Amino acid sequence: MGEVEETVADVGEFALIRRVTGNRSAGPATLLGPGDDAAVVAAPDGRVVACTDVLVEGVHFRFDWSPPEQVGRKAAAVNLADIAAMGAEPTALLVGIACPSTTRASVVDELSAGLAAEAARARAGVVGGDMTRSDTLVISVTALGTLDGRAPVTRAGALPGDIVAVAGKLGWSAAGLAVLGRGFRSPVTVVGAHRVPAPPYSAGPAAALAGATSMIDVSDGLLADLAHIAEASNVAIDLVGDRVPVDQRLIEVASALGADARHWVLTGGEDHALAATFPNASAVPPDFRIIGSVARGTGVTIDGKPYPGDTGWQHWR
Amino acid sequence: MGEVEETVADVGEFALIRRVTGNRSAGPATLLGPGDDAAVVAAPDGRVVACTDVLVEGVHFRFDWSPPEQVGRKAAAVNLADIAAMGAEPTALLVGIACPSTTRASVVDELSAGLAAEAARARAGVVGGDMTRSDTLVISVTALGTLDGRAPVTRAGALPGDIVAVAGKLGWSAAGLAVLGRGFRSPVTVVGAHRVPAPPYSAGPAAALAGATSMIDVSDGLLADLAHIAEASNVAIDLVGDRVPVDQRLIEVASALGADARHWVLTGGEDHALAATFPNASAVPPDFRIIGSVARGTGVTIDGKPYPGDTGWQHWR
Repeated sequence: MGEVEETVADVGEFALIRRVTGNRSAGPATLLGPGDDAAVVAAPDGRVVACTDVLVEGVHFRFDWSPPEQVGRKAAAVNLADIAAMGAEPTALLVGIACPSTTRASVVDELSAGLAAEAARARAGVVGGDMTRSDTLVISVTALGTLDGRAPVTRAGALPGDIVAVAGKLGWSAAGLAVLGRGFRSPVTVVGAHRVPAPPYSAGPAAALAGATSMIDVSDGLLADLAHIAEASNVAIDLVGDRVPVDQRLIEVASALGADARHWVLTGGEDHALAATFPNASAVPPDFRIIGSVARGTGVTIDGKPYPGDTGWQHWR
Repeated sequence: MGEVEETVADVGEFALIRRVTGNRSAGPATLLGPGDDAAVVAAPDGRVVACTDVLVEGVHFRFDWSPPEQVGRKAAAVNLADIAAMGAEPTALLVGIACPSTTRASVVDELSAGLAAEAARARAGVVGGDMTRSDTLVISVTALGTLDGRAPVTRAGALPGDIVAVAGKLGWSAAGLAVLGRGFRSPVTVVGAHRVPAPPYSAGPAAALAGATSMIDVSDGLLADLAHIAEASNVAIDLVGDRVPVDQRLIEVASALGADARHWVLTGGEDHALAATFPNASAVPPDFRIIGSVARGTGVTIDGKPYPGDTGWQHWR
């Protein structure tokens, strides 16, 4: 006989909130952590950067593809990457989890451990949380960050003549999703990149310090997110096809699956790389690779031509 | 023939996020509003107060009992009240909405209008949001606030000899729930109090300025939330039975339903009144009514005796 597994209903709401938020190492910016009506977080330059993202079981993750600890890490990473994309350093996460009453308490514990581990990787503390009942498991994360006196790097500052560059992985999450979708579990580096993105957090503030004129977190796909910069900045962006980095590992996986690695790199979301523009090539920090340039006009092209395939996705379409 | 109603899938994710967060009057603390990877909010004293709450359809609200605009107002209010309970003034809200793709877009528009209206009542802006697909409609709200140089008022500072006082309505939401549960729609003041709580936002900072030693938002019920203060402060709280305010309107409704109005006042959650302790009676600000005192010991009593009924609730029990 197996042991009877404890559910969230067995543990109860308050005890579970303590398990989600408690026993974690507080980040250096945590002035008052979990357990009261609200937390207090340092905002040393008198401003706080804030963003929120909601992840839903069956839409953004599947527990048969990713264990709860990795889902927790992903939920933290997608938010922390948005903070980095403003040129800011993460300081804190707040986490809301809604789940069925039959959910095993160990699932919530592992989710929470993953959230805390990824937050710690970005030096942020988990400062608050809420737990409630829902037929669908939903994880909602808010991330806070500090600009340390710098101006925020928005999507709207790119200027004709600027250089376009990217930091972090591109296409790996899409490749991992394709592998999992065919029923495979390897190669593990590719599958792992889908389960847990590895956003280059420190590259965000580095880009801001280097004078980045615009920046975005690549969550919808490189072309789609560069199109957001082009639209917000009222400029055109042209990529140099040969400069777009397609990793040899992705080429091998694509070859095995009969897929197109370059398509993953150009259109795959969820790697949470950072794409930014800089006033000139010498300003581009070491973490970034130059892939194109900014001109007058509108839209995004590769070697002067529009990309013929689909360039992104929306959750309801 | 009726018109075909537009769904969230028809509108699409990005357009819907713009509708949720756009065209709203930004709060005075909004430095960079919605539309980028993250927002930037003023935190003038170098600290930000932050909390998060998740509301689920069928658990926290029912659209057959409350129209979407009122659900939106409630989702904002429960979070803004937590900010006030720290002695802080709200500055910003971030909103995540997960809903089925068949949800009418007008429902999301009305939810958003309600969120923005309640935020505006507290002088906070809606600075960011996320929209995604889910089988269950889930609204996740994060509120930010500023202490303007004051110390946060936690649950842990009550001292023997302190005075206990409350600001705002008590028992009204529970009464409204009882009315709706019997299939009635009136009296509207009582039903309205369940649909949209009216937390006394300004009473929170006023209590902090008056030297409140502890404070909590009454979300689980007066006795349950005072028990949180008693536990966190390691003190006992005794209420004077005759001082606990039971509104005449609630007595009438209870009489009609064969219910106990005093039980609603002592144990009903969701009114989001503020309960606080003060060093002496003369420190208690005008918005607060004195209902008891703090002593050495543990637990919460009324006229020296434990309350015989259930004192609160948990979502999974």
